[in-house]
Amino acid sequence: MQIARTISEIRKYVAQARAAGKTVGFVPTMGALHAGHASLIEAAAKRCDYVVASLFVNPTQFGPGEDFEKYPRPFEKDAHLCESHGGHAVFAPSADEMYPRKNLTWVTVDKLTEPLCGQSRPGHFRGVTTVCTKLFNIVGADVAFFGQKDAQQAIVIRRMVADLNMPLEIVVCPTVREPDGLAMSSRNQYLSPQERKEAPVIYRSLQRCAELLDAGERDAAKIVEEMQKVLGQTPALRTEYVSILDAESLERCDPIRGRILVAFAGRLGSTRLIDNIMVDTTAK
Amino acid sequence: MQIARTISEIRKYVAQARAAGKTVGFVPTMGALHAGHASLIEAAAKRCDYVVASLFVNPTQFGPGEDFEKYPRPFEKDAHLCESHGGHAVFAPSADEMYPRKNLTWVTVDKLTEPLCGQSRPGHFRGVTTVCTKLFNIVGADVAFFGQKDAQQAIVIRRMVADLNMPLEIVVCPTVREPDGLAMSSRNQYLSPQERKEAPVIYRSLQRCAELLDAGERDAAKIVEEMQKVLGQTPALRTEYVSILDAESLERCDPIRGRILVAFAGRLGSTRLIDNIMVDTTAK
Repeated sequence: MQIARTISEIRKYVAQARAAGKTVGFVPTMGALHAGHASLIEAAAKRCDYVVASLFVNPTQFGPGEDFEKYPRPFEKDAHLCESHGGHAVFAPSADEMYPRKNLTWVTVDKLTEPLCGQSRPGHFRGVTTVCTKLFNIVGADVAFFGQKDAQQAIVIRRMVADLNMPLEIVVCPTVREPDGLAMSSRNQYLSPQERKEAPVIYRSLQRCAELLDAGERDAAKIVEEMQKVLGQTPALRTEYVSILDAESLERCDPIRGRILVAFAGRLGSTRLIDNIMVDTTAK
Repeated sequence: MQIARTISEIRKYVAQARAAGKTVGFVPTMGALHAGHASLIEAAAKRCDYVVASLFVNPTQFGPGEDFEKYPRPFEKDAHLCESHGGHAVFAPSADEMYPRKNLTWVTVDKLTEPLCGQSRPGHFRGVTTVCTKLFNIVGADVAFFGQKDAQQAIVIRRMVADLNMPLEIVVCPTVREPDGLAMSSRNQYLSPQERKEAPVIYRSLQRCAELLDAGERDAAKIVEEMQKVLGQTPALRTEYVSILDAESLERCDPIRGRILVAFAGRLGSTRLIDNIMVDTTAK
């Protein structure tokens, strides 16, 4: 597998793959790879001839007091995981390589970045859309792969790509879960053994929502109340939001209709966890 | 010459040129082409095998009360000029083709967009940087050509391309002037015969600045005062700004040192005119 630490190196590797007639897939990550990332790399390898994964803990998407410093960076393990799931190159630049001077240019997406995580993480999505634009421009892939676990991010990125006519396709892959339902996340390793045992309550609350929708319930406020009852079984969990929104516009949607995003964010101890399900209520 | 009205058409034409091993040059314009644009197309044709000029009066860079509606759109004349100066394709999309839905995504450049025209045209540069990003993504050129006449725009675009790692080179070409010194501009045609006769005073004030710099003057306030004396000879001219700024950071620079931008904006009647010179005072 090829390892690139600089922009010119990864551009050279991709140019060589292109010259050989290969299609290029891209999986942007912050490293600390888990089975969720592995599934993205596998999806990319299935779809494209040459697969690049980036490992970059992007400073501009962390707020003051967030976990930028302590975010795990197990490079050797990440490179190995990438290779073993079908990746051909890893792009792992330094912060100076990505931001060699004060960054003055930002890509922002209005409206879609306001609700949910936009409320508690001001500037987060601006950091994400800006670094994704940079990475897309650097790698020059045909297809980029994102996880449904970061649902709002995927919706924002899709809209950015469409609005700015970026010449690549965005594929969103299903959330990968532990056997007990906890969504895979690099931040799960922050959890104490007790917190780890309690964390699956989040997914149970989402399953409760799915049951109610299946049974025909369309009153969003009522469903959220039921979900909060489930979440309330774990007093250590401090809920930041439980929201049911239109899956495209991220606007309130009560009574529920069409494709919806049911999203949770909260803290277990000091660890912030998010999860969601997408449900198409049209056919039901 | 090839005429593309849609994004998919121009992408097809460029892909064909690429498949034939050609390099691609791009000249983004709002149409109403004049000798200044012709020089950009010629520079592109000299440097690149296949030259695309876009003709698009971009609504998002006009403010309320500006001349979006009345901005001239002489398509046939523009296409002819483009072809006769070495262009291979014209991309002339409709506003709906470029903005098929409410645009939520913006590219912004901080600081460099604050002084000069940023003061009187809020949102203007955001419109320019956003539409240029879209056009760069659509055309996929190797090199894009801009005029020095829009000095702040060129500086902002260069910074955007660097900050976002856009995979293209920006070339800035000298301002083309009428024999009496008036900088070529699509807006010159708004001028009455009397105003047209008076307009060269702008360039005369810039020449006065160059003389003073040549003579060793480095007091920016003093030079601006001298320039205002020249401009004052034409009472119909309402100056918006006369500024001497560092040519890279666009910060105040008094006493003058290094490469500087001397920039003017003002109105003659209802027509807004801008002009500038860049001077490297290092070697002097």
